[in-house]
Amino acid sequence: MQVINSIEEMKQERKKLACTVGFVPTMGYLHRGHLTLVRRAKRDNDVAVVSIFVNPTQFGPGEDFATYPRDTERDLEMLEKEGVDFVFMPTPDDMYPDGYNTWVETFGITSKLEGEKRPGHFKGVTTIVNKLFNIVLPHKAYFGQKDAQQLRVIQKMVADLDMHVKIMPVATVRSRRGLAMSSRNNYLSKEEREAALVLYKALSTAEEMYMRGEQDVARIRVKITGIINQEPLAKIDYISIADADTLEELTYMDRSALISMAVRIGNTRLIDNRTIG
Amino acid sequence: MQVINSIEEMKQERKKLACTVGFVPTMGYLHRGHLTLVRRAKRDNDVAVVSIFVNPTQFGPGEDFATYPRDTERDLEMLEKEGVDFVFMPTPDDMYPDGYNTWVETFGITSKLEGEKRPGHFKGVTTIVNKLFNIVLPHKAYFGQKDAQQLRVIQKMVADLDMHVKIMPVATVRSRRGLAMSSRNNYLSKEEREAALVLYKALSTAEEMYMRGEQDVARIRVKITGIINQEPLAKIDYISIADADTLEELTYMDRSALISMAVRIGNTRLIDNRTIG
Repeated sequence: MQVINSIEEMKQERKKLACTVGFVPTMGYLHRGHLTLVRRAKRDNDVAVVSIFVNPTQFGPGEDFATYPRDTERDLEMLEKEGVDFVFMPTPDDMYPDGYNTWVETFGITSKLEGEKRPGHFKGVTTIVNKLFNIVLPHKAYFGQKDAQQLRVIQKMVADLDMHVKIMPVATVRSRRGLAMSSRNNYLSKEEREAALVLYKALSTAEEMYMRGEQDVARIRVKITGIINQEPLAKIDYISIADADTLEELTYMDRSALISMAVRIGNTRLIDNRTIG
Repeated sequence: MQVINSIEEMKQERKKLACTVGFVPTMGYLHRGHLTLVRRAKRDNDVAVVSIFVNPTQFGPGEDFATYPRDTERDLEMLEKEGVDFVFMPTPDDMYPDGYNTWVETFGITSKLEGEKRPGHFKGVTTIVNKLFNIVLPHKAYFGQKDAQQLRVIQKMVADLDMHVKIMPVATVRSRRGLAMSSRNNYLSKEEREAALVLYKALSTAEEMYMRGEQDVARIRVKITGIINQEPLAKIDYISIADADTLEELTYMDRSALISMAVRIGNTRLIDNRTIG
């Protein structure tokens, strides 16, 4: 496994590869969700590249950029065990040198949900992912469905800008009791971790209601809002029941729906989602 | 020579090429300036790709998108004679399908000169060039120095976004009497074409003054403004004497300077420039 810290070196190494390249962009502090992406990248391609970069431009003021968990040594051990070929770990100064001034922005779909609650977040995401794709030139890139809107935004950017990469969505990996894997779970106390199960419970309840024939979005919303509000440590940021493609809010479950939510558990903001129908 | 009209087909053809690719993006209505770029692309690379696309998003309201000269048959004959391998001529609907919503924008350097006079122009330029680079994946791309600011903006975008392509600037091609080649020269009447020589005359005078030791920007500016104002058909849009790298206006010629101007000759807006020192 080769660890590369400079953009120029990564580009040089990439030029030498005449085989298929799978890519997993991460912010590090890896968990089983990331490892699932890595195994898919290994399985589908000749060479697997993983990037680790906590991207400052996708964090807003007052968000957790400074405290975002980092443990490079542990990450590298995990990736080595998975048989990853290249780990790309650029520095912030290399990615955003003095005078950096170009931004890639996808509009429309980014104005809702996470984009509405975290202004500028997706502009940071599309810009860094665009740069990483340009550097690594992957044939396939792997993204978890836990970040459902991010996945759609990246698919839209890739389609609009005619990038050669194929975006591969991978199902959310969960704890045995249903908590979606996230590096931010590391912030949770034992009590909060228990409380965080309420997201899964709410999503499962919504699906059960739909399976039993409920198609009225307002009724589903009232039910799952109630479930989360019963948990004293939980505070709802948003609950969305939207068209799975356009992310327009629905009033009636007459097409494939993305139920997504952001909930604060103590000081930690968690997101989760499920596609229904 | 293969003429390709769809993005998907161009991408497929590109994937088959294991050699070096030179690329010349154009808006068609080709002149000797373009052909110089094409010959450089042929000389430096195994395969030469030329695109012809009058990009609607780089024209502002009230600009000349509708009337921009077009003659595909003539263009293709010229490119065939040059031994071009691929001509990529996408449709506007293929480049900007319904719901298109992603923009690449370079800030800072785009706020001056052409960017100030033509709001949104460079956003259209960086977006279309980014898309074309993604589709064609050239090793080298060729741009004329006549569009001096455009060249810098594209170099900045490529550097900021870590694109693999190398940008190759090519000297402005001129008529025997000094008029810079431009598809927009086609708009000029015989009389206006004569009047348009005033741009070259002004630039040459500025250089002569500098060569004779003049370093005061104000005095050079007064002189060349006078030259252009003597021409009844000419109307100055801007004259800039700026740091050749940053495009910040200078007061003293103590470093390499880009003298650039936009001048209306009748209804036709022409630009020209020279780097001095």
